[in-house]
Amino acid sequence: MNSRRNFLRTTGLTALAGMTGIETLFAASKKKSGKTSGKGLILRFIPYELQLRHTFTLANSSRKTTPDVLISLEFEGVTGYGEASMPPYLGESIESASKFLSSLNLSQFNDPFQMDDILQYVDSVMPGNCAAKASVDIALHDLVGKLMGQPWYKIWGFNPADTPNTSFTIGIDTPDVVRQKVAEAVPYQVLKVKLGQKTDREMIETIRSVSDKPLCVDVNQGWTDKQMALDMIHWLKEKGVVFVEQPMPKTSIDEMAWLTEHSPLPTIGDESVQRLPDVMKAKGVYNGINIKLMKCTGMREAHQMLTLAKSLDMKVMIGCMTETSCAISAAAQLSPKCEWADLDGNLLISNDPYQGVQVVKGKVTLIDQPGIGLSALDTKWKI
Amino acid sequence: MNSRRNFLRTTGLTALAGMTGIETLFAASKKKSGKTSGKGLILRFIPYELQLRHTFTLANSSRKTTPDVLISLEFEGVTGYGEASMPPYLGESIESASKFLSSLNLSQFNDPFQMDDILQYVDSVMPGNCAAKASVDIALHDLVGKLMGQPWYKIWGFNPADTPNTSFTIGIDTPDVVRQKVAEAVPYQVLKVKLGQKTDREMIETIRSVSDKPLCVDVNQGWTDKQMALDMIHWLKEKGVVFVEQPMPKTSIDEMAWLTEHSPLPTIGDESVQRLPDVMKAKGVYNGINIKLMKCTGMREAHQMLTLAKSLDMKVMIGCMTETSCAISAAAQLSPKCEWADLDGNLLISNDPYQGVQVVKGKVTLIDQPGIGLSALDTKWKI
Repeated sequence: MNSRRNFLRTTGLTALAGMTGIETLFAASKKKSGKTSGKGLILRFIPYELQLRHTFTLANSSRKTTPDVLISLEFEGVTGYGEASMPPYLGESIESASKFLSSLNLSQFNDPFQMDDILQYVDSVMPGNCAAKASVDIALHDLVGKLMGQPWYKIWGFNPADTPNTSFTIGIDTPDVVRQKVAEAVPYQVLKVKLGQKTDREMIETIRSVSDKPLCVDVNQGWTDKQMALDMIHWLKEKGVVFVEQPMPKTSIDEMAWLTEHSPLPTIGDESVQRLPDVMKAKGVYNGINIKLMKCTGMREAHQMLTLAKSLDMKVMIGCMTETSCAISAAAQLSPKCEWADLDGNLLISNDPYQGVQVVKGKVTLIDQPGIGLSALDTKWKI
Repeated sequence: MNSRRNFLRTTGLTALAGMTGIETLFAASKKKSGKTSGKGLILRFIPYELQLRHTFTLANSSRKTTPDVLISLEFEGVTGYGEASMPPYLGESIESASKFLSSLNLSQFNDPFQMDDILQYVDSVMPGNCAAKASVDIALHDLVGKLMGQPWYKIWGFNPADTPNTSFTIGIDTPDVVRQKVAEAVPYQVLKVKLGQKTDREMIETIRSVSDKPLCVDVNQGWTDKQMALDMIHWLKEKGVVFVEQPMPKTSIDEMAWLTEHSPLPTIGDESVQRLPDVMKAKGVYNGINIKLMKCTGMREAHQMLTLAKSLDMKVMIGCMTETSCAISAAAQLSPKCEWADLDGNLLISNDPYQGVQVVKGKVTLIDQPGIGLSALDTKWKI
């Protein structure tokens, strides 16, 4: 990986002379006047490797770190914060995000309230790059929320008392490690289990040997036979599972529609549902969708997807990648209108630089602070 | 019609002693402390008969006034304003609106930001009453926008430069009056023509004898034969018509889908599309929808309908009834994302108590003032 210095880019104005690395990203709010207070939006970003508490195993991969980019967006001395989390299997990287963010000319925008224009521009610059786009969207929402003096759940008119419990993810692992993870999950009311391997029943039995909490199941496209999938879902229902996420490959549309029609548990599309146009396609194929900011380019499109899904009478789960409290707090703003939340990404890393939304007795708990409600754990990260 | 005194109702607290009529409605902002500053939202309302500049003729009715109710919603000394306009053919009246508004208990809500809960409650109290519900929604948006210090087009992230021209409505009348109306419409770039009578071609020819401006056509369900309708649309296209609104009865769904498929001009559903669930039903039947706050219970559902229509790749027209600058300014907040605007309702009345959104060279022109951007023409109406 290249050095931080090489990755540091300032879009809109040149970097502050004599400053490098992480301090530069957050210098804006300390220096309310001076070189950075030009016209237009000023974007800064820096790579940040997330350290995972446990090796993370999905159906087809495992890893100990997640590449991430932290960004800031400044306007007239007010700064919003954003983040791109990029699990490798999704195709983005620190290199691709840096290239994307460097290509943006946000200094052309003199009014951060014109989120529609700004985010349409960001989306139009290159295809893909959804996590990098989400980082700008989150920072812009944080900035505009601060300019309005309100958190986004209030701007959207949601009741913070309506937030759901968040599930806590138990990755695929040996029985001993699984039992240890379940023991660590004491504060959480709902567990999410990653399935899609030959050890599926063993995983469930291992968890059921130490916990009777409701379980959500995420198969990550791991099952390929619809009848086998239906049999598993019937078995899972008896084991106290609440819903089944992405049981089959995203290309198995007809099989999936059949499975949803026959399933005794709700089905949720995740890999099948990335952006707004995918919501309509998911109607009749799944009972619900998993919205993740890193898939859908951020809070604005996520809010539109939520509106669309509700008007289609579909369930909504708000999910995440492994990410810091920045993106988790952004996603949590939507959670009062979602049936389910899977917002444990910040709890799975050991080097979260931020504090934001909290989990209190298993429930997503919003903070009445402007923007996405973020504060920093260390003065180095002061906002 | 009953006297104002009889209609004056105060929901949440009793009316101010010694005050009656219109002054009471607006007393809140003058008296920032005192009897009205209790906990919870305080609703006041009063009837207001709109005087039309011209007798208004549709396919099946004509009238010189429109019944209307003006409302205010106060929270801790900040007041938002709303309005219910109730053309008689839509089934609401000052009596029904008064009954509905009197039945509300808004003092139970201590946080105006919880718009989702408040407006779901308002919608749940009785079925129908869409204009009365819209009056509360508009006043709540005005109030919350003021609490955030921003107009709603900014809160929604829209660019005020994107507002469309508004059409100016030419009602069904004699050729002389039609020519007079067209002459009065000099400031407007687009004319809207009410059709659906035997004189349709004569109306168009009369206007074309004095103006070559683009025309929109609103048939108000007036055509019953699909082939006749298609022939008319071909003829209208040659006459410079831009789109055709509600050409056939709202119950003629198959015929309308056929007409849309064959029509050389876009078709717009109006009477067919009242609330959010109707948008999905209109897909494939019309090319676009006409959103009116008085049909859809207000700005929150209108914004959801706009989001849904855009995700369905449908055109959107933002329309109105005859109404004051209050409801027009509320609707105008959505207009930057709409292809067409028909926001001339305040221009068709002679006793508008408010000033808000303006039409400048035919274009809807938003004001950077909090809430719906309203001010009063007279100190009696001071906000």
